[in-house]
Amino acid sequence: MGKQIWKPGNMLYPLPAVMVSTGDTKGNTNILTIAWTGTVCTNPAMAYISVRPERYSYGMLRETGEFVINLTTEKLAWAADYCGVRSGRDVDKWKETGLHRGKAETLDFAPLIRESPVNLECRVTEVKELGSHHMFLAEVKAVHADEAYLDKNGRLELNHAGLLVYSHGEYLAAGKKLGTFGYSVKKKAPDQKKTVQKKKASAHKKRLEHKKASHRKAT
Amino acid sequence: MGKQIWKPGNMLYPLPAVMVSTGDTKGNTNILTIAWTGTVCTNPAMAYISVRPERYSYGMLRETGEFVINLTTEKLAWAADYCGVRSGRDVDKWKETGLHRGKAETLDFAPLIRESPVNLECRVTEVKELGSHHMFLAEVKAVHADEAYLDKNGRLELNHAGLLVYSHGEYLAAGKKLGTFGYSVKKKAPDQKKTVQKKKASAHKKRLEHKKASHRKAT
Repeated sequence: MGKQIWKPGNMLYPLPAVMVSTGDTKGNTNILTIAWTGTVCTNPAMAYISVRPERYSYGMLRETGEFVINLTTEKLAWAADYCGVRSGRDVDKWKETGLHRGKAETLDFAPLIRESPVNLECRVTEVKELGSHHMFLAEVKAVHADEAYLDKNGRLELNHAGLLVYSHGEYLAAGKKLGTFGYSVKKKAPDQKKTVQKKKASAHKKRLEHKKASHRKAT
Repeated sequence: MGKQIWKPGNMLYPLPAVMVSTGDTKGNTNILTIAWTGTVCTNPAMAYISVRPERYSYGMLRETGEFVINLTTEKLAWAADYCGVRSGRDVDKWKETGLHRGKAETLDFAPLIRESPVNLECRVTEVKELGSHHMFLAEVKAVHADEAYLDKNGRLELNHAGLLVYSHGEYLAAGKKLGTFGYSVKKKAPDQKKTVQKKKASAHKKRLEHKKASHRKAT
Protein backbone atom coordinates (compact mmCIF):
# COMPACT_ATOMS: atom_id res chain seq x y z
CA MET A 1 0.00 0.00 0.00
CA GLY A 2 1.04 3.59 -0.46
CA LYS A 3 0.50 6.74 1.50
CA GLN A 4 -2.11 9.44 1.42
CA ILE A 5 -1.01 13.06 1.60
CA TRP A 6 -3.13 15.20 3.88
CA LYS A 7 -3.26 18.87 4.69
CA PRO A 8 -1.35 20.13 7.76
CA GLY A 9 -2.55 18.60 11.03
CA ASN A 10 -1.57 17.39 14.49
CA MET A 11 -0.56 13.77 14.22
CA LEU A 12 2.46 13.56 16.51
CA TYR A 13 1.89 10.69 18.96
CA PRO A 14 2.18 9.05 21.49
CA LEU A 15 2.15 11.89 24.03
CA PRO A 16 1.85 12.27 27.78
CA ALA A 17 -1.51 13.45 29.19
CA VAL A 18 -0.35 15.47 32.17
CA MET A 19 -2.49 17.24 34.73
CA VAL A 20 -1.31 20.83 35.13
CA SER A 21 -2.14 22.52 38.42
CA THR A 22 -2.37 26.30 38.64
CA GLY A 23 -3.26 28.95 41.18
CA ASP A 24 -3.94 32.69 41.31
CA THR A 25 -3.04 35.33 43.88
CA LYS A 26 -6.52 35.12 45.49
CA GLY A 27 -6.13 31.46 46.45
CA ASN A 28 -8.14 29.93 43.59
CA THR A 29 -6.60 26.83 42.07
CA ASN A 30 -7.43 24.56 39.15
CA ILE A 31 -6.33 21.47 37.25
CA LEU A 32 -6.25 21.21 33.45
CA THR A 33 -5.13 18.25 31.39
CA ILE A 34 -2.68 18.84 28.57
CA ALA A 35 -1.10 16.69 25.86
CA TRP A 36 0.60 19.61 24.09
CA THR A 37 3.56 19.44 26.47
CA GLY A 38 7.15 18.21 26.41
CA THR A 39 10.75 18.78 27.37
CA VAL A 40 12.46 21.53 25.38
CA CYS A 41 15.91 21.70 26.95
CA THR A 42 18.03 19.38 29.09
CA ASN A 43 20.22 22.02 30.69
CA PRO A 44 18.70 24.18 32.04
CA ALA A 45 15.79 21.76 32.49
CA MET A 46 12.92 23.33 30.58
CA ALA A 47 9.44 22.22 29.59
CA TYR A 48 6.44 23.79 27.89
CA ILE A 49 2.68 23.63 27.90
CA SER A 50 0.44 25.02 25.15
CA VAL A 51 -2.92 26.34 26.33
CA ARG A 52 -5.94 27.92 24.64
CA PRO A 53 -6.53 31.47 25.98
CA GLU A 54 -10.20 30.51 26.60
CA ARG A 55 -9.21 28.00 29.27
CA TYR A 56 -9.99 28.93 32.88
CA SER A 57 -6.39 28.34 33.95
CA TYR A 58 -4.99 30.67 31.31
CA GLY A 59 -5.50 33.79 33.42
CA MET A 60 -3.81 32.14 36.40
CA LEU A 61 -0.82 31.17 34.26
CA ARG A 62 -0.53 34.73 32.98
CA GLU A 63 -0.96 36.25 36.42
CA THR A 64 1.52 34.14 38.38
CA GLY A 65 3.82 32.60 35.76
CA GLU A 66 3.67 29.37 37.74
CA PHE A 67 2.40 25.85 37.09
CA VAL A 68 3.06 22.28 38.12
CA ILE A 69 3.20 19.39 35.63
CA ASN A 70 1.80 16.32 37.39
CA LEU A 71 2.45 13.00 35.63
CA THR A 72 -0.53 10.70 35.24
CA THR A 73 -0.95 6.95 35.57
CA GLU A 74 -3.56 4.33 34.67
CA LYS A 75 -5.15 4.92 38.07
CA LEU A 76 -5.45 8.63 37.27
CA ALA A 77 -6.89 8.14 33.75
CA TRP A 78 -10.44 9.00 34.78
CA ALA A 79 -9.34 12.16 36.60
CA ALA A 80 -7.06 13.16 33.72
CA ASP A 81 -9.88 12.85 31.23
CA TYR A 82 -12.32 14.66 33.50
CA CYS A 83 -9.92 17.59 34.02
CA GLY A 84 -9.46 17.79 30.24
CA VAL A 85 -13.13 18.10 29.35
CA ARG A 86 -14.67 20.02 32.26
CA SER A 87 -13.92 23.67 33.07
CA GLY A 88 -12.83 24.99 36.45
CA ARG A 89 -15.35 27.80 35.86
CA ASP A 90 -18.17 25.27 36.32
CA VAL A 91 -16.86 22.65 38.74
CA ASP A 92 -14.38 22.26 41.56
CA LYS A 93 -12.12 19.67 39.96
CA TRP A 94 -10.36 18.82 43.24
CA LYS A 95 -13.68 17.87 44.78
CA GLU A 96 -15.00 16.04 41.73
CA THR A 97 -11.88 13.94 41.27
CA GLY A 98 -10.95 13.44 44.92
CA LEU A 99 -7.40 14.65 44.21
CA HIS A 100 -5.47 16.53 46.90
CA ARG A 101 -3.44 19.72 46.77
CA GLY A 102 0.14 19.66 48.02
CA LYS A 103 2.50 22.55 48.72
CA ALA A 104 5.07 23.34 46.08
CA GLU A 105 8.65 23.89 47.19
CA THR A 106 9.65 26.81 44.96
CA LEU A 107 6.29 28.25 43.83
CA ASP A 108 4.03 30.66 45.68
CA PHE A 109 0.60 30.03 44.14
CA ALA A 110 0.40 26.83 42.08
CA PRO A 111 -0.14 23.68 44.18
CA LEU A 112 0.91 20.19 43.16
CA ILE A 113 -1.28 17.10 42.98
CA ARG A 114 -0.32 14.68 45.74
CA GLU A 115 -1.61 11.58 43.94
CA SER A 116 0.79 12.00 40.98
CA PRO A 117 4.01 9.94 41.04
CA VAL A 118 6.08 12.89 39.80
CA ASN A 119 5.51 16.65 39.98
CA LEU A 120 7.55 19.23 38.08
CA GLU A 121 7.43 22.75 39.49
CA CYS A 122 7.68 25.18 36.57
CA ARG A 123 8.23 28.91 36.31
CA VAL A 124 7.32 30.59 33.00
CA THR A 125 10.15 32.29 31.10
CA GLU A 126 8.23 33.31 27.98
CA VAL A 127 4.79 33.10 26.39
CA LYS A 128 4.50 32.70 22.62
CA GLU A 129 1.10 33.49 21.12
CA LEU A 130 1.19 31.01 18.26
CA GLY A 131 -2.47 30.85 17.24
CA SER A 132 -5.21 28.70 18.80
CA HIS A 133 -2.69 27.91 21.53
CA HIS A 134 -0.24 30.03 23.47
CA MET A 135 2.95 28.25 24.42
CA PHE A 136 4.29 28.73 27.96
CA LEU A 137 8.01 28.02 28.03
CA ALA A 138 9.21 27.37 31.55
CA GLU A 139 12.16 26.36 33.66
CA VAL A 140 11.72 23.33 35.90
CA LYS A 141 12.53 24.55 39.41
CA ALA A 142 12.03 21.36 41.45
CA VAL A 143 10.99 17.74 40.98
CA HIS A 144 8.98 15.67 43.46
CA ALA A 145 9.22 11.89 43.14
CA ASP A 146 7.03 9.38 44.97
CA GLU A 147 9.18 7.19 47.21
CA ALA A 148 6.96 4.24 46.31
CA TYR A 149 8.81 4.07 42.96
CA LEU A 150 12.38 4.40 44.22
CA ASP A 151 14.49 1.25 44.17
CA LYS A 152 16.80 0.31 47.03
CA ASN A 153 19.52 2.57 45.60
CA GLY A 154 17.17 5.53 45.47
CA ARG A 155 16.80 5.42 41.70
CA LEU A 156 13.40 6.27 40.30
CA GLU A 157 11.76 3.34 38.53
CA LEU A 158 9.29 5.55 36.76
CA ASN A 159 8.05 2.83 34.44
CA HIS A 160 6.76 0.84 37.42
CA ALA A 161 4.19 3.61 37.98
CA GLY A 162 1.96 2.58 35.05
CA LEU A 163 2.24 5.89 33.19
CA LEU A 164 -0.67 7.00 31.05
CA VAL A 165 -0.16 7.41 27.28
CA TYR A 166 -2.35 9.66 25.12
CA SER A 167 -2.48 8.87 21.43
CA HIS A 168 -4.84 10.13 18.75
CA GLY A 169 -7.87 10.56 21.00
CA GLU A 170 -7.28 7.49 23.14
CA TYR A 171 -5.76 6.83 26.55
CA LEU A 172 -3.46 3.80 26.53
CA ALA A 173 -1.50 1.97 29.17
CA ALA A 174 2.25 1.82 28.72
CA GLY A 175 3.08 -1.64 27.37
CA LYS A 176 5.99 -4.05 27.54
CA LYS A 177 9.61 -2.96 27.51
CA LEU A 178 11.29 -3.31 24.12
CA GLY A 179 14.76 -2.05 24.95
CA THR A 180 16.89 0.42 26.84
CA PHE A 181 18.37 3.59 25.30
CA GLY A 182 21.51 2.54 23.40
CA TYR A 183 20.57 -1.15 23.17
CA SER A 184 21.12 -1.25 19.42
CA VAL A 185 24.87 -0.68 19.81
CA LYS A 186 25.43 -2.03 23.30
CA LYS A 187 28.73 -3.77 23.85
CA LYS A 188 28.47 -7.29 25.26
CA ALA A 189 31.23 -9.50 26.68
CA PRO A 190 33.72 -10.20 23.83
CA ASP A 191 32.49 -13.73 23.07
CA GLN A 192 28.83 -12.70 23.03
CA LYS A 193 29.33 -9.46 21.22
CA LYS A 194 29.33 -10.40 17.56
CA THR A 195 26.50 -12.86 17.83
CA VAL A 196 24.23 -10.53 19.78
CA GLN A 197 24.91 -7.52 17.57
CA LYS A 198 24.39 -9.55 14.42
CA LYS A 199 21.26 -11.16 15.78
CA LYS A 200 19.75 -7.78 16.64
CA ALA A 201 20.61 -6.20 13.30
CA SER A 202 19.40 -9.23 11.40
CA ALA A 203 16.11 -9.39 13.33
CA HIS A 204 15.61 -5.72 12.50
CA LYS A 205 16.35 -6.27 8.79
CA LYS A 206 13.92 -9.20 8.69
CA ARG A 207 11.14 -7.03 10.09
CA LEU A 208 11.83 -4.39 7.46
CA GLU A 209 12.03 -6.99 4.65
CA HIS A 210 8.67 -8.29 5.71
CA LYS A 211 7.22 -4.80 5.59
CA LYS A 212 8.79 -4.11 2.20
CA ALA A 213 7.39 -7.36 0.80
CA SER A 214 3.87 -6.52 1.89
CA HIS A 215 4.28 -3.01 0.46
CA ARG A 216 5.40 -4.44 -2.87
CA LYS A 217 2.46 -6.79 -2.98
CA ALA A 218 -0.04 -4.03 -2.49
CA THR A 219 1.33 -1.23 -4.66
CA MET B 1 5.23 6.83 51.68
CA GLY B 2 6.04 10.43 50.97
CA LYS B 3 7.88 12.20 48.23
CA GLN B 4 11.46 13.20 47.74
CA ILE B 5 12.23 16.67 46.43
CA TRP B 6 14.94 16.75 43.79
CA LYS B 7 16.78 19.50 41.98
CA PRO B 8 15.47 20.55 38.55
CA GLY B 9 15.53 17.78 35.95
CA ASN B 10 13.82 16.26 32.93
CA MET B 11 11.22 13.83 34.14
CA LEU B 12 8.31 14.45 31.79
CA TYR B 13 7.25 11.09 30.35
CA PRO B 14 6.00 9.13 28.37
CA LEU B 15 7.20 10.73 25.13
CA PRO B 16 7.37 9.82 21.47
CA ALA B 17 10.76 8.77 20.03
CA VAL B 18 10.49 10.13 16.51
CA MET B 19 13.01 9.82 13.73
CA VAL B 20 13.68 13.23 12.22
CA SER B 21 14.97 13.28 8.64
CA THR B 22 16.97 16.23 7.36
CA GLY B 23 18.84 17.26 4.24
CA ASP B 24 21.24 19.99 3.08
CA THR B 25 21.53 21.85 -0.20
CA LYS B 26 24.32 19.53 -1.40
CA GLY B 27 22.17 16.42 -1.30
CA ASN B 28 23.39 15.00 2.03
CA THR B 29 20.67 13.63 4.26
CA ASN B 30 20.52 12.20 7.77
CA ILE B 31 18.22 10.73 10.39
CA LEU B 32 18.30 11.65 14.08
CA THR B 33 16.05 10.34 16.83
CA ILE B 34 14.42 12.82 19.16
CA ALA B 35 12.21 12.60 22.24
CA TRP B 36 12.27 16.35 22.96
CA THR B 37 9.42 16.93 20.50
CA GLY B 38 5.69 17.67 20.64
CA THR B 39 2.76 19.61 19.29
CA VAL B 40 2.75 23.30 20.26
CA CYS B 41 -0.31 24.63 18.45
CA THR B 42 -3.44 23.11 16.91
CA ASN B 43 -4.19 25.90 14.46
CA PRO B 44 -1.93 26.56 12.67
CA ALA B 45 -0.60 23.03 13.15
CA MET B 46 2.82 23.50 14.75
CA ALA B 47 5.39 21.17 16.27
CA TYR B 48 8.90 21.52 17.65
CA ILE B 49 12.10 19.56 17.99
CA SER B 50 14.92 20.44 20.39
CA VAL B 51 18.40 19.58 19.13
CA ARG B 52 21.93 19.92 20.51
CA PRO B 53 24.07 22.16 18.27
CA GLU B 54 26.75 19.43 18.23
CA ARG B 55 24.49 17.05 16.33
CA TYR B 56 25.34 16.40 12.68
CA SER B 57 21.82 17.34 11.55
CA TYR B 58 21.93 20.71 13.30
CA GLY B 59 23.72 22.43 10.41
CA MET B 60 21.22 21.01 7.92
CA LEU B 61 18.31 22.27 10.00
CA ARG B 62 19.87 25.74 10.18
CA GLU B 63 20.72 25.79 6.47
CA THR B 64 17.38 24.67 5.03
CA GLY B 65 14.83 25.27 7.81
CA GLU B 66 13.26 21.94 6.88
CA PHE B 67 12.72 18.62 8.61
CA VAL B 68 10.34 15.68 8.61
CA ILE B 69 9.02 14.08 11.80
CA ASN B 70 8.64 10.35 11.13
CA LEU B 71 6.60 8.43 13.72
CA THR B 72 8.10 5.20 14.98
CA THR B 73 6.64 1.80 15.78
CA GLU B 74 7.71 -1.36 17.60
CA LYS B 75 9.12 -2.64 14.30
CA LEU B 76 11.24 0.51 14.01
CA ALA B 77 12.53 0.46 17.62
CA TRP B 78 15.96 -0.86 16.68
CA ALA B 79 16.38 1.76 13.93
CA ALA B 80 15.11 4.53 16.22
CA ASP B 81 17.60 3.64 18.90
CA TYR B 82 20.44 3.30 16.39
CA CYS B 83 19.71 6.72 14.87
CA GLY B 84 19.69 8.20 18.37
CA VAL B 85 23.13 6.96 19.43
CA ARG B 86 25.17 6.95 16.21
CA SER B 87 26.22 10.11 14.33
CA GLY B 88 25.64 10.74 10.64
CA ARG B 89 29.24 12.00 10.58
CA ASP B 90 30.44 8.42 11.09
CA VAL B 91 27.86 6.20 9.44
CA ASP B 92 25.28 6.25 6.67
CA LYS B 93 22.19 5.67 8.76
CA TRP B 94 19.99 4.86 5.76
CA LYS B 95 22.32 2.03 4.81
CA GLU B 96 22.82 0.76 8.35
CA THR B 97 19.10 0.67 9.16
CA GLY B 98 17.78 -0.35 5.75
CA LEU B 99 15.32 2.56 5.81
CA HIS B 100 14.34 4.26 2.54
CA ARG B 101 14.12 7.93 1.61
CA GLY B 102 10.86 9.23 0.14
CA LYS B 103 10.15 12.55 -1.54
CA ALA B 104 8.49 15.22 0.56
CA GLU B 105 5.54 17.07 -0.96
CA THR B 106 6.25 20.61 0.26
CA LEU B 107 9.96 20.52 1.18
CA ASP B 108 12.96 20.87 -1.10
CA PHE B 109 15.77 19.16 0.81
CA ALA B 110 14.56 17.02 3.73
CA PRO B 111 13.36 13.55 2.67
CA LEU B 112 10.82 11.45 4.56
CA ILE B 113 11.25 7.89 5.80
CA ARG B 114 9.04 5.56 3.80
CA GLU B 115 8.80 2.89 6.50
CA SER B 116 7.15 5.26 9.03
CA PRO B 117 3.34 5.09 9.31
CA VAL B 118 3.04 8.89 9.49
CA ASN B 119 5.35 11.66 8.27
CA LEU B 120 4.96 15.33 9.18
CA GLU B 121 6.65 17.78 6.83
CA CYS B 122 7.82 20.76 8.88
CA ARG B 123 9.17 24.18 8.02
CA VAL B 124 11.03 26.09 10.76
CA THR B 125 9.51 29.40 11.86
CA GLU B 126 11.91 30.23 14.70
CA VAL B 127 14.94 28.86 16.54
CA LYS B 128 15.26 29.44 20.27
CA GLU B 129 18.73 28.93 21.73
CA LEU B 130 17.69 27.75 25.17
CA GLY B 131 20.87 26.14 26.48
CA SER B 132 22.13 22.60 25.81
CA HIS B 133 19.33 22.37 23.24
CA HIS B 134 18.07 24.74 20.58
CA MET B 135 14.35 24.56 19.96
CA PHE B 136 13.15 24.55 16.35
CA LEU B 137 9.56 25.74 16.20
CA ALA B 138 7.92 24.76 12.93
CA GLU B 139 4.69 24.73 10.99
CA VAL B 140 3.45 21.37 9.76
CA LYS B 141 3.07 21.76 5.99
CA ALA B 142 1.81 18.28 5.00
CA VAL B 143 1.02 14.93 6.58
CA HIS B 144 1.59 11.53 4.97
CA ALA B 145 -0.43 8.60 6.35
CA ASP B 146 0.13 4.95 5.50
CA GLU B 147 -2.98 3.52 3.83
CA ALA B 148 -2.40 0.29 5.72
CA TYR B 149 -3.83 2.00 8.82
CA LEU B 150 -6.90 3.63 7.25
CA ASP B 151 -10.25 2.06 8.06
CA LYS B 152 -12.93 1.55 5.40
CA ASN B 153 -14.10 5.14 5.91
CA GLY B 154 -10.61 6.52 5.35
CA ARG B 155 -10.05 7.34 9.02
CA LEU B 156 -6.57 6.80 10.37
CA GLU B 157 -6.43 4.10 13.04
CA LEU B 158 -3.05 5.25 14.27
CA ASN B 159 -3.11 3.08 17.37
CA HIS B 160 -3.16 -0.05 15.20
CA ALA B 161 0.35 0.84 14.07
CA GLY B 162 2.03 -0.25 17.31
CA LEU B 163 3.53 3.16 18.13
CA LEU B 164 6.75 3.28 20.08
CA VAL B 165 6.81 4.96 23.51
CA TYR B 166 9.97 6.39 25.10
CA SER B 167 9.99 6.74 28.85
CA HIS B 168 12.86 7.43 31.23
CA GLY B 169 15.53 5.67 29.19
CA GLU B 170 13.36 2.80 27.98
CA TYR B 171 11.46 1.98 24.80
CA LEU B 172 8.01 0.60 25.53
CA ALA B 173 5.20 -0.74 23.39
CA ALA B 174 1.90 1.09 23.59
CA GLY B 175 -0.40 -0.97 25.80
CA LYS B 176 -4.10 -1.60 26.12
CA LYS B 177 -6.73 1.06 25.53
CA LEU B 178 -8.11 2.55 28.76
CA GLY B 179 -10.60 5.03 27.33
CA THR B 180 -11.41 7.56 24.65
CA PHE B 181 -11.05 11.33 25.07
CA GLY B 182 -14.15 12.53 26.95
CA TYR B 183 -15.11 9.09 28.29
CA SER B 184 -15.33 10.37 31.87
CA VAL B 185 -18.36 12.52 31.05
CA LYS B 186 -19.75 10.67 28.06
CA LYS B 187 -23.51 10.66 27.77
CA LYS B 188 -25.08 7.22 27.45
CA ALA B 189 -28.67 6.30 26.54
CA PRO B 190 -30.95 7.75 29.29
CA ASP B 191 -31.51 4.45 31.12
CA GLN B 192 -27.83 3.55 31.12
CA LYS B 193 -26.56 7.02 31.88
CA LYS B 194 -26.74 7.30 35.62
CA THR B 195 -25.48 3.81 36.29
CA VAL B 196 -22.54 4.09 33.93
CA GLN B 197 -21.52 7.55 35.12
CA LYS B 198 -21.79 6.51 38.74
CA LYS B 199 -19.93 3.28 38.14
CA LYS B 200 -17.04 5.12 36.47
CA ALA B 201 -16.79 7.80 39.14
CA SER B 202 -17.05 5.25 41.91
CA ALA B 203 -14.40 2.99 40.36
CA HIS B 204 -12.13 6.03 40.14
CA LYS B 205 -12.76 6.98 43.78
CA LYS B 206 -12.06 3.41 44.88
CA ARG B 207 -8.70 3.46 43.12
CA LEU B 208 -7.80 6.72 44.84
CA GLU B 209 -9.01 5.44 48.23
CA HIS B 210 -6.83 2.41 47.80
CA LYS B 211 -3.86 4.63 47.01
CA LYS B 212 -4.59 6.90 49.94
CA ALA B 213 -4.85 3.93 52.31
CA SER B 214 -1.50 2.55 51.24
CA HIS B 215 -0.01 6.03 51.61
CA ARG B 216 -1.40 6.33 55.11
CA LYS B 217 -0.05 2.95 56.05
CA ALA B 218 3.45 3.84 55.00
CA THR B 219 3.80 7.41 56.20
